[in-house]
Amino acid sequence: MTDAPTPPPASATPRFGVNYTPSRDWFHHWLDFDLDAVRTDLDSLASLGLDHIRVFPLWPLFQPNRAVVRERAVEQLRQLVDAAGERGLDVNVDGLQGHLSSFDFLPAWTGTWHRRNLFTDPDVVEAEAVYLRTLAAALADRPNFLGMTVGNEINQFSGDPHPDPDRITQQQAGAWLRRMLDACARGAPGKWHVHAEYDAAWYLDHHPFTPAHAARLGAATAVHSWVFNGTAQRHGPDGVATEHHAAYLVELSKAWALEPHRPVWLQEVGAPQPHIPADRAAAFTRATVEAALDCPDVWGVTWWCSHDVPRRLADFPELEYSLGLFTEDQRPKPAARALAEVARDRRAAPRPAAPRTTALVLDAHPEGPESHAEGTRPGRSVCAPGGSFFEAFARLTARGARPAVVLAERADDAQHLTARGITDLVTVEQT
Amino acid sequence: MTDAPTPPPASATPRFGVNYTPSRDWFHHWLDFDLDAVRTDLDSLASLGLDHIRVFPLWPLFQPNRAVVRERAVEQLRQLVDAAGERGLDVNVDGLQGHLSSFDFLPAWTGTWHRRNLFTDPDVVEAEAVYLRTLAAALADRPNFLGMTVGNEINQFSGDPHPDPDRITQQQAGAWLRRMLDACARGAPGKWHVHAEYDAAWYLDHHPFTPAHAARLGAATAVHSWVFNGTAQRHGPDGVATEHHAAYLVELSKAWALEPHRPVWLQEVGAPQPHIPADRAAAFTRATVEAALDCPDVWGVTWWCSHDVPRRLADFPELEYSLGLFTEDQRPKPAARALAEVARDRRAAPRPAAPRTTALVLDAHPEGPESHAEGTRPGRSVCAPGGSFFEAFARLTARGARPAVVLAERADDAQHLTARGITDLVTVEQT
Repeated sequence: MTDAPTPPPASATPRFGVNYTPSRDWFHHWLDFDLDAVRTDLDSLASLGLDHIRVFPLWPLFQPNRAVVRERAVEQLRQLVDAAGERGLDVNVDGLQGHLSSFDFLPAWTGTWHRRNLFTDPDVVEAEAVYLRTLAAALADRPNFLGMTVGNEINQFSGDPHPDPDRITQQQAGAWLRRMLDACARGAPGKWHVHAEYDAAWYLDHHPFTPAHAARLGAATAVHSWVFNGTAQRHGPDGVATEHHAAYLVELSKAWALEPHRPVWLQEVGAPQPHIPADRAAAFTRATVEAALDCPDVWGVTWWCSHDVPRRLADFPELEYSLGLFTEDQRPKPAARALAEVARDRRAAPRPAAPRTTALVLDAHPEGPESHAEGTRPGRSVCAPGGSFFEAFARLTARGARPAVVLAERADDAQHLTARGITDLVTVEQT
Repeated sequence: MTDAPTPPPASATPRFGVNYTPSRDWFHHWLDFDLDAVRTDLDSLASLGLDHIRVFPLWPLFQPNRAVVRERAVEQLRQLVDAAGERGLDVNVDGLQGHLSSFDFLPAWTGTWHRRNLFTDPDVVEAEAVYLRTLAAALADRPNFLGMTVGNEINQFSGDPHPDPDRITQQQAGAWLRRMLDACARGAPGKWHVHAEYDAAWYLDHHPFTPAHAARLGAATAVHSWVFNGTAQRHGPDGVATEHHAAYLVELSKAWALEPHRPVWLQEVGAPQPHIPADRAAAFTRATVEAALDCPDVWGVTWWCSHDVPRRLADFPELEYSLGLFTEDQRPKPAARALAEVARDRRAAPRPAAPRTTALVLDAHPEGPESHAEGTRPGRSVCAPGGSFFEAFARLTARGARPAVVLAERADDAQHLTARGITDLVTVEQT
C-alpha cells in the first residue's frame, strides 16, 4: 500500500462543478467520441463559471477484455481532459462504470459464463486495479487532472436492491476499496483519489460499504445526496430536511471521520422531478448548495448533471431526463443560473463556514444492530430519512440551529470536540 | 409477415467460407474498427480461395440504447462488406450477438434493472426487429450481401446451461424466430435470411428451439457441428461418427424439413483441440467437409473460424485460442490448406451428392417425451451423441452406408420418399 492519501489542495472558496453527461448520446458518446461535440458541451459548462467536472468512462468499452485497456479510449479520455483544461475546468475521472442512471455496464468477462465476484475474485480485482492505475497514469501529468473516483456508486453491486448482487462482508468491501485507491495512487501519485457510494453506505444496516469506509478511506469523503430517497416524500420539496439533506450528509460524514477537518466533497446532488417540481429547481438548488457550504471543510459541490438525457434515448427512469443544468441543445435551465449565481457570489465574497458548535450525538452501531455484542444499540438506519436521528437533526435545523454530528463514542473526547469547535452536545431525546 | 423466404441461389458447386474472427482484438475490433486491418485479414481468407464469410456485429455496440442503432457502426459494417466484395467474398451478417465463444454481449437495456425477456418482451422484441431490419436495409443494395442470420446460437439464452436463462415455450421461440426473419426480409427483400442454433435444438428434449424451427423457418437450414458435444469423447478424434458428425446433422435436419430439397448450410464446423489433436486437424477438416458434401442439398460449408483468438486476450475457453485457419499473424494452418484443397478440387470437378437411397427411420417426438400424448415415444435426445438413433446412424455409416433420415410419420409417405430419392428404410433396431 502507498502512503497516506494526498488531500485536495486547500481553496479559499469552495469549488463548483458538474457531473458531465454528454448532450449527444449520453455516456454512449464513447462509442462515437467526437471532441468537437465535447467541446461544445464544455463551453456551456465553462460559461456558468464552473471550475471542474467529473467524467465517466464506460468500463466495458475501456476494458472489453480482462487483459485489455484500450489505448484509443484512454487517448480519448485524455483529449476530453485536455479540452476541459483549455476551458479552465479541472477533471475528476470516475473509473468503474459500472452503474449509471439505472443502467449497469459490466464487461462480458464478469458476466454469465464468466460471472465472478466484482469485489473478491482475484483475477477481476487485479484487472480492476490495472484499469484504474492505467487511467490514472495516463492523466498523471495533466495539471487539471484532480484524481480518480474508484467507481460511481459501485456499492450498488454489493446488495439489494440490485437484482443480482455480489454479496461481500464489510471487511471485504474495505479491503477492495483500499486496493482500488492504492491502484489510483500508483498510477497518479500526488493526485487525490476518492471512492463514492450511494447512500446505503450511510443509511442501511448491514450494508457492506460503511460510513467508516466513506469517511476514512481515500483523500476526501464523497457524498451523494438524492432527496428521492424518502426525504422529499416525507418533508416535501421545500422542507428543511429536503433542502438540508446534502448538508446533513456532510455533517453525518464528519462524525465518522478520523481527521477533524477531512475534506468532504458533495460529489453528486441534483433536483429530481417530480420530488422537486421544475418550478422549484432553482430555489432548491440555491438552498441546497448554500446549506452544504454552511458546513466546514466542504471542498466543493458537483451538480448532477450537466445535460438532460436526450428524450430519444429510451428506458431511463423518468426523472433522469430532466436533471441537466442544460437542455440537450445547450440552453441553461433555472438551476444552472442558480448554481452560477451561488458560485459567483461565493467567489466575490468568500465566507468560510463557521464551526458548528452544537453537535447532535449519534448513538448507532456502524455495522448494524445484529452484528455486534452491544445489545439493543441501533444500527445506522436511524440516520436514514424517517429514522430517529435523521428527524432529530431535521428538527434542530428547522429551529435555526447549525448542528454538527458527534459519535457517542467520542462525546467525551475533548480533543476531538475541540478540534472541531464543538462546545455543546445534544442527544436525540433532547431535540 | 412477408412471403415465403428467398432461397439461396443454386450453385453448381458448394460454397466454401469461413466465420470471420478478426485477428486483431477478436470481435472487440468494432471498438477500434480499422478497415486496413480487416483488409489484411480478408486478403488471407481470399488467398485460400474461399468465397464467403459470416460476420458478427456486437449487439451492445451497435444498439447501445434500445432506441439507437449507431449509424457509424452500420457504416463500418458496410465498409467491411464492401472490402469483402473487393476480394470476391460474399457476406452473411449475423445480427444478435449475443453469445460468442463463451462471452455474452447483451445491451445494458436488457440487463439487471432493465431485465426483460429477450424473446417475449414486446419492447425488446420490437427493438431487436428494428436492429435486424436496419442492418439488412443498410446492406440490401450490396451484391455480395447474402443475407442475415438472426443471431449466433441465440438459443443459448433460452435454457440451461445458460446461467440466467430466459425461459420460453416452443411456441414463443417459433413466434420470435418468425418475427426476426420477417424483420430481416423487410430490410433486405430478395436476400436469403436464416437463423441458427447450437445443437440443443437437435438433441435436447424440451428445448424451446426445435428441429422443426431449424428445418422449416428461414431460407435454409443452418447447422452448427461441434464434436466436443460428446461425439469426439465417445468416438475418438478419428471415429466415423466424429468425422461424419456434420454430415449427420445435415441429414438429421433434412428429416424435419418440409421441402425435400431445402438447402442446408453447414454454417459452423471446426476442429476443437484437444478433442481433435492439432496433428489431426487437417485430416479431420478434409474428412468432415467431404462427408458433409456427400449429403444432397448442402449450400456450403463455413469453417469456424478465420483467425486464432490472440493469446493476449484473457478468459477464453482453451479450445477457442486455436480454432483459426490462420494464426494471429496470418500464417495458414494445416486445416486452412485442407479446406482450400477440398474447395479447389470440388470446383475443378463438381460432383453433386447422389441421393441417399437408404433412410434410417427416426421415431422421436420433436418436443420431448413428456410434452405429448404419445405414451413412451422418446424425445429428440435419442438423436444426441450416445443416443440410440445417433449411434445407429454411426453404425450404418461405419459400414459404408450413406444413410438419410426419415421421420417415422413420413415412412409411408411415398411422395416424400420419392422426392428425396429414398428407396429403402431401416429402423434403429435393424442396424
